[in-house]
Amino acid sequence: MQRLSISQPDFAKAFRRIVNSRRESDEGVADQVKTILSKVRASGDETLVELTARFDQHNLSSDADWSISKAECEAAFHALEPSLRQALELAADRIRTYHEAQLPTDRDYTDDAGVRLGARWLPVDAAGLYVPGGRAAYPSSLLMNAIPAKVAGVARLAVVTPTPRGQINPLVLAAAHLAGVDEIWRVGGAQAVGALAYGTERISRVDVITGPGNAWVAEAKRQLYGVVGIDMVAGPSEILVIADGQNNPDWIAADLLSQAEHDPVAQSILITDDANFASQVEDRIDVQCAMLSTQKTAKASWDNHGVVIVVDDLDQSIALANDLAAEHVELAVADPAPLFEGIRHAGSVFIGRFAPEAVGDYVAGPNHVLPTGRRARFASGLSVLDFMKRSSFIELDEAALNAIGPAAIALAEAEGLPAHAQSIEKRLK
Amino acid sequence: MQRLSISQPDFAKAFRRIVNSRRESDEGVADQVKTILSKVRASGDETLVELTARFDQHNLSSDADWSISKAECEAAFHALEPSLRQALELAADRIRTYHEAQLPTDRDYTDDAGVRLGARWLPVDAAGLYVPGGRAAYPSSLLMNAIPAKVAGVARLAVVTPTPRGQINPLVLAAAHLAGVDEIWRVGGAQAVGALAYGTERISRVDVITGPGNAWVAEAKRQLYGVVGIDMVAGPSEILVIADGQNNPDWIAADLLSQAEHDPVAQSILITDDANFASQVEDRIDVQCAMLSTQKTAKASWDNHGVVIVVDDLDQSIALANDLAAEHVELAVADPAPLFEGIRHAGSVFIGRFAPEAVGDYVAGPNHVLPTGRRARFASGLSVLDFMKRSSFIELDEAALNAIGPAAIALAEAEGLPAHAQSIEKRLK
Repeated sequence: MQRLSISQPDFAKAFRRIVNSRRESDEGVADQVKTILSKVRASGDETLVELTARFDQHNLSSDADWSISKAECEAAFHALEPSLRQALELAADRIRTYHEAQLPTDRDYTDDAGVRLGARWLPVDAAGLYVPGGRAAYPSSLLMNAIPAKVAGVARLAVVTPTPRGQINPLVLAAAHLAGVDEIWRVGGAQAVGALAYGTERISRVDVITGPGNAWVAEAKRQLYGVVGIDMVAGPSEILVIADGQNNPDWIAADLLSQAEHDPVAQSILITDDANFASQVEDRIDVQCAMLSTQKTAKASWDNHGVVIVVDDLDQSIALANDLAAEHVELAVADPAPLFEGIRHAGSVFIGRFAPEAVGDYVAGPNHVLPTGRRARFASGLSVLDFMKRSSFIELDEAALNAIGPAAIALAEAEGLPAHAQSIEKRLK
Repeated sequence: MQRLSISQPDFAKAFRRIVNSRRESDEGVADQVKTILSKVRASGDETLVELTARFDQHNLSSDADWSISKAECEAAFHALEPSLRQALELAADRIRTYHEAQLPTDRDYTDDAGVRLGARWLPVDAAGLYVPGGRAAYPSSLLMNAIPAKVAGVARLAVVTPTPRGQINPLVLAAAHLAGVDEIWRVGGAQAVGALAYGTERISRVDVITGPGNAWVAEAKRQLYGVVGIDMVAGPSEILVIADGQNNPDWIAADLLSQAEHDPVAQSILITDDANFASQVEDRIDVQCAMLSTQKTAKASWDNHGVVIVVDDLDQSIALANDLAAEHVELAVADPAPLFEGIRHAGSVFIGRFAPEAVGDYVAGPNHVLPTGRRARFASGLSVLDFMKRSSFIELDEAALNAIGPAAIALAEAEGLPAHAQSIEKRLK
């Protein structure tokens, strides 16, 4: 953990180093991913069989080895302990309600020149969703990716997920049932992403691929961007907590650890105007961390990437927050409105002392798939729009073409494109 | 040019070959671009000086070598021939009006559980716009990229454009003045894209890079996707004209050539239900092409990539169009409504006999930066949203956390994330 004070002489430099530090390690995997993707493209199912045996110790042979049926998902859902089923249902309902309001409206109007103009939104035909196996097999993540796709109106939603040694997470199946997933394929890694993008004998290709994954999965999505649509280039999670000294340090410590327990390269940052409070939080982190089942991960993250910054005045946190452009920003202060107003770059903002980030991971409603690694400067969280596309349209009659056509001819001629000019000119005669 | 009939026995196979044909050639340039980008990252301005001298025969030394002032743009605008200036103004006005209606609305509400939820849209701080030099230096392209950025509210809009042997296109400068561009840097190629993404001593980094370019520019944007936002992976242009036999073949020939004259690897496709009409169009193409100043490009495109498909019934064109997912689709038929209804995948649709695609390139209003290479299956044309990003926000008081917190705790525990659970639990006590 690194502690900085805004009044220390080398603060600007030290802060810059934090802003620019890279916690993503995709360099080494790029070539491996490239090789895997071309193998999948050349010999689809054969490559999946080979790599799934090698990486997941799972043999793809019978239909049941290849995929999980809707009946199995439904059974997993009904086998859930009731309180857990209700929690999952509450989460799904709240996520669905929030995302339904994101559905865009079409435009269709005729302007003064007599030109009919518009834009029409339609869902993609098919979406693929990566669901990690093992440690990061999160039903919440399935809901957060699948529900926006279904709200968008995507007819076919295919999940790929590795089942190491055949092992399947029933919670993920239950979530798949609840979200209305259409197919689940038992493949993972870059090869699964390649199968979704190119299609194989068994798995039909999709148009958009979303969902979290390890460095290989993230790099496969990056390399396939353009062949398919993807949600975003994702890196390790991060949280920035801006807190005054009036908070319970135990609460803030838990918030910082909730991010740290995700990943050894996750990053938790506290900005406070109270050095004494900062020390109390640090102490509580040590105490709490020692009791966590996730302590190994949380400790590695906090020790290596944790940052505590003491400022003179919380107003100073605005510029720092905008530079960090963090995935999650908590405003645990008496009057959060002015800070919220100033923070331009953040994936999601959690306002007030009773808004721990974890509530947004599960049940608040907004998407928990958010831009990481300073990408909130230009990127947004996952939404219904990621599963839709817009076609513009233009309709003219002879009078409308007479009204605006001559200007287009002048510009086409100035650009040296005579066939452009003629396609209009011939109609004006 | 290739002519197919839907009733020929091998039609499905031949059509599939057209759908899957690749006209993009980024494979060879990937390594070169990678090298250029790391050089720019390591030694910014020095690399720009070196590569601009080598590729553009332009020496970057004085300030005037490096950039073009706003005063020069203004002077270029006022020096325009009046009819051309008016054409440019009409185009800018219509583009601005269409894009202003794309501005998204924020959300901010409190739901039944007492949870305040919302989404706030903000422009990115800075956008970079690539403007090609030489053959493809199009003022219309500058307007189509710059106006949405300015409508979005982007405070800093930096253009990069190569000026080979010092040569500057005054029309582009005039358009830059009209669109309110803030900076113009006289650099091009992958190195200019790298400079925008990483920043150099002279050029501050931006958050989003848009604009057309050659294979090196397109590949640089692809490689930098994630470091910055980009508009899309762009390939050569294409048009699909669906026409009945009642059209003037001369008009349709001009429409097909207007796409072909862009690029030797552009693609023009005609689908018609009238074989005789198809032959007439082919004849008119030969005649018109021979008279074009762009005939070399247009002929190469039409000869190598042009396609004419004769169907039995125009209803069959819908499935073909959706498979092709073309950048531009013209519906030159007596009753375009049912075809328009059926076409799900298209960058932009031009409806009726008096809507040649070229009118959309310049003055109709919708953006002419559109998805190519079948990407209309999942991507949309450039819009104001490409220069903005959305932050979600969540505010809870104690009662709201009591209402939805327990479900989040249940899910966090089920996912094996105890710090997540505790960050909520501690607040509920």
